[in-house]
Amino acid sequence: MAAQVQRMSRLMVKTLRDDPADAETLSHKLLVRAGYVRRNAAGIWSWLPLGMRVLENVARVVREEMDAIGAQEVLLPALLPKEPYELTGRWDEYGAELFRLQDRKGADYLLGPTHEEIFTQLVKDQCTSYKDLPVILYQIQTKYRDEARPRSGILRGREFQMKDSYSFDTTDEGLAESYRLHREAYVKIFQRLGLEHRIVSAVSGAMGGSASEEFLAPAAAGEDTFVYCPSCDYAANTEAVTFELKPVSGEHGPVEELDTPDTPTIETLADHLGVPASATLKNLLVKVDGEIVAVGVPGDREVDLGKLTDHLAPAAVELVTAEDFVGRPDLVRGYVGPQGLEKVRYIADPRVAPGTAWITGANKQDKHARNVVAGRDFEVDDYLDVVVVEDGDPCPTCGTGLKLDRAIEIGHIFQLGRKYTDAFQLDVLGQNGKPVRVTMGSYGIGVSRAVAALAEQHADEQGLCWPGEVAPADVHVVAAGKALQTELALDVAEKLGAAGARVLVDDRAGVSPGVKFTDAELIGVPKILVAGRRSAEGVLELKDRRTGEREELTVEEALARLTA
Amino acid sequence: MAAQVQRMSRLMVKTLRDDPADAETLSHKLLVRAGYVRRNAAGIWSWLPLGMRVLENVARVVREEMDAIGAQEVLLPALLPKEPYELTGRWDEYGAELFRLQDRKGADYLLGPTHEEIFTQLVKDQCTSYKDLPVILYQIQTKYRDEARPRSGILRGREFQMKDSYSFDTTDEGLAESYRLHREAYVKIFQRLGLEHRIVSAVSGAMGGSASEEFLAPAAAGEDTFVYCPSCDYAANTEAVTFELKPVSGEHGPVEELDTPDTPTIETLADHLGVPASATLKNLLVKVDGEIVAVGVPGDREVDLGKLTDHLAPAAVELVTAEDFVGRPDLVRGYVGPQGLEKVRYIADPRVAPGTAWITGANKQDKHARNVVAGRDFEVDDYLDVVVVEDGDPCPTCGTGLKLDRAIEIGHIFQLGRKYTDAFQLDVLGQNGKPVRVTMGSYGIGVSRAVAALAEQHADEQGLCWPGEVAPADVHVVAAGKALQTELALDVAEKLGAAGARVLVDDRAGVSPGVKFTDAELIGVPKILVAGRRSAEGVLELKDRRTGEREELTVEEALARLTA
Repeated sequence: MAAQVQRMSRLMVKTLRDDPADAETLSHKLLVRAGYVRRNAAGIWSWLPLGMRVLENVARVVREEMDAIGAQEVLLPALLPKEPYELTGRWDEYGAELFRLQDRKGADYLLGPTHEEIFTQLVKDQCTSYKDLPVILYQIQTKYRDEARPRSGILRGREFQMKDSYSFDTTDEGLAESYRLHREAYVKIFQRLGLEHRIVSAVSGAMGGSASEEFLAPAAAGEDTFVYCPSCDYAANTEAVTFELKPVSGEHGPVEELDTPDTPTIETLADHLGVPASATLKNLLVKVDGEIVAVGVPGDREVDLGKLTDHLAPAAVELVTAEDFVGRPDLVRGYVGPQGLEKVRYIADPRVAPGTAWITGANKQDKHARNVVAGRDFEVDDYLDVVVVEDGDPCPTCGTGLKLDRAIEIGHIFQLGRKYTDAFQLDVLGQNGKPVRVTMGSYGIGVSRAVAALAEQHADEQGLCWPGEVAPADVHVVAAGKALQTELALDVAEKLGAAGARVLVDDRAGVSPGVKFTDAELIGVPKILVAGRRSAEGVLELKDRRTGEREELTVEEALARLTA
Repeated sequence: MAAQVQRMSRLMVKTLRDDPADAETLSHKLLVRAGYVRRNAAGIWSWLPLGMRVLENVARVVREEMDAIGAQEVLLPALLPKEPYELTGRWDEYGAELFRLQDRKGADYLLGPTHEEIFTQLVKDQCTSYKDLPVILYQIQTKYRDEARPRSGILRGREFQMKDSYSFDTTDEGLAESYRLHREAYVKIFQRLGLEHRIVSAVSGAMGGSASEEFLAPAAAGEDTFVYCPSCDYAANTEAVTFELKPVSGEHGPVEELDTPDTPTIETLADHLGVPASATLKNLLVKVDGEIVAVGVPGDREVDLGKLTDHLAPAAVELVTAEDFVGRPDLVRGYVGPQGLEKVRYIADPRVAPGTAWITGANKQDKHARNVVAGRDFEVDDYLDVVVVEDGDPCPTCGTGLKLDRAIEIGHIFQLGRKYTDAFQLDVLGQNGKPVRVTMGSYGIGVSRAVAALAEQHADEQGLCWPGEVAPADVHVVAAGKALQTELALDVAEKLGAAGARVLVDDRAGVSPGVKFTDAELIGVPKILVAGRRSAEGVLELKDRRTGEREELTVEEALARLTA
């Protein structure tokens, strides 16, 4: 048999008819049922022979496109000493998500979740002159994160395969170019893999840095929510959406106090006054590094604590408790208003623009105030977009109502800037003979997660349905069962293999044709070639796994068609 | 530029003129100096671009030959739950060599040193019938061992790359066949890699099992000692050498007691009596699972505690201390003899064969005895070969004096038998409808260690000197420096690359020809092609890195020669 022909009779693959009990997402169910992966512990998986082929195919495409932009492949350790992560503060920042351990001598180590520190050290050691830069380094490596809730199969594992790369440049323009190269390579990679994706603006979160975009694969199982504009090409991580601050003008009467007994919530207040919630101003009290701060948003909107935390990082944000009101007569719980809150920093959403008028707390028990105008009756210390994005919010680019969708994050590109190179004092000798601080980018693709995303996007009720470049084989030849059919199946498989096709041939004895067909649909190779009832005439049936189209072909026709 | 052409001006490689301070072995020095690897922590290394290519080449050869014997590639996790290793006892047996850690919930995990347990579980899950077997599974994976003394660079790391495979069969004959397939594949792999090696008998040690052989690469830096016979093809791990038990006949006078004041050691005794140490019998006392046992060997030989421990496993072996003699008047320290030691189990080396006569302790202070004959004056409970093998010991096959040599263990094949399948009760349904206990083999190749072994075997004073299949490139084109020379070098590099050769081209500006030549020798690509003083005529100089032979060639001749 040609090296590219795999006989099912000798392949370790056990398909299952039923979904695993703990599986919630489509990819989890199908990848387990079709024998691609097997669970070893929470968030820890084995790649079985079929799964390994898909994983290797994804890795190959990633490798080819990284090489094409001049990136150099390396392999850094996964077991890492604590010190470099302590230097940047990430040893602590990562919290419980970091797997930590000690060696036999009691020295502290971690299992690498991402390698910015180690690459910065490497480049500091290897590159000394501007002539050594730019450099882009990458690795395809096993990564570790002790997720609080590992779930969805290989979609969110605690041990997973990732391509991470890092660019090092002497100038901001150089970094922008390295970023652009990655962006284009990622587009090519996901196109070749057959992954439908969107590129969205992202906040950079704990990584620090300036520009950042995410590659999202829309899928019902996705854990990320993003927005896109149906009219223009705007798309963003929901945390990255910003509402433009536009002052409004208009006449408003003076502030008027209202009796509003027993209305400590927006709902009770709006009910009592017979106004929409959007006419009211909600003031959320939080503690920022221990200091009480008020956050104002329209009464019909929710504060996105993630956005708020990102805006205020590295300060710690927490909700207030009853104890925080002790000794603070200026803070009347349930009846707070920004007017007259001189001692408290006031952050407001851009929707609370100068000139807008609100019904809000009067800072007295059971009292609210009407005609409280931003910029007239109270000052906003900082405008920050902190509300949860909703379907129909205006597109920041064209104003059309945005749409919300769910997706899987499959890639992320960051312009980190000098956060890490400052920490490690990574300078090279510049053209003028003076040291230049290096600027850095960091870029990731979830290689094992891409397999799950592919399974989510390419499946139907019968099973998986892989795009050609990642499929575990090009053709799945099924021998219906009789000796003559098996002979024909093996013969055509051998010929296809010799002509360069990757072939899976179901030559199993004692397995009914029905089971073989069901397995073929489940396994999801793009073309299924059946040696069935017309085998004696040398005629096979070719089925397209995706469209379901069938046609009868001779061996020669099948060869011509499938090895074109 | 063709994808296979790598310009040195854009390659991250920093060569060093001096050996790293901590390096003892040749491979450690050269791989660091030539920019192949970089140390991150004790026994933890990064693979830089050049090193990555060699590592990938080794992995590719291993993969191809494993695929050729029908082995199926999988990828199991490195982070593993404790339970399966607890079931087989290896969680404890591994001692401090095992990296252990806890997850955020406090559950115990380990970093896999080898995966017998996890593969056994996998096959128990996937294979249910004799029809599903035999199966051979392999992975190329990062492994972890917390070595007490990580040293010698990548030769003995704490994180390293290994190919491990596991065979599962229903019969002993099947296991023997899976073992034979591996043995042949390993020979092909090491031949293709260009690794000189010997296959030696091995004791199976802590792994358990019946048949086992090691693949050793002779090298001065090797940590393994082995013996080989210069006359026949016998070769063995020193711990596996056995001396045949051959009873001798002959007349000996009766036991005679000798006054030997102040002679508690063999040396003082032989001196006092004026006899060779080989005429005396040395009796070492050890504790086996707490019970005192005497071990008898000729006075001129040393007991190999490793061999003894392997023979007596799983019992624990420790040396006796002064306290153990308290309350034991039968044990006279320094004057122990096997005659009259009824209460003590007596183990002897086969050299203490029945009929041999010895001078040994008389079990009285300052007294020895002469003419103490094995089998007449004392009984041996167990004959075990426990002496340290010495140069000139007789070959067990042909009797010729054995030679000792040092080597690096690069592969190991084991017939494990049913140790692990018993632990996990791995049965499949047999042909007769009854369950059959599966039998197992386990086979390893140190992929990263093979790179070090290659560097040890293929180097000279100038640097590395890679065999073709593993070299980071086929040709190293050096542009001596002038614009015309660089132009010619890039042109020929491009043509070589287009014709399928893997090319490294040193196009660095501002680097002297001398430094470039020195770097080329150090990096060790098999062919060095220099665009030097005859560049204007289109003539280059080709140097064979190994032989040092030089010849002048036109571009066309160089292309024909190097892409043949």
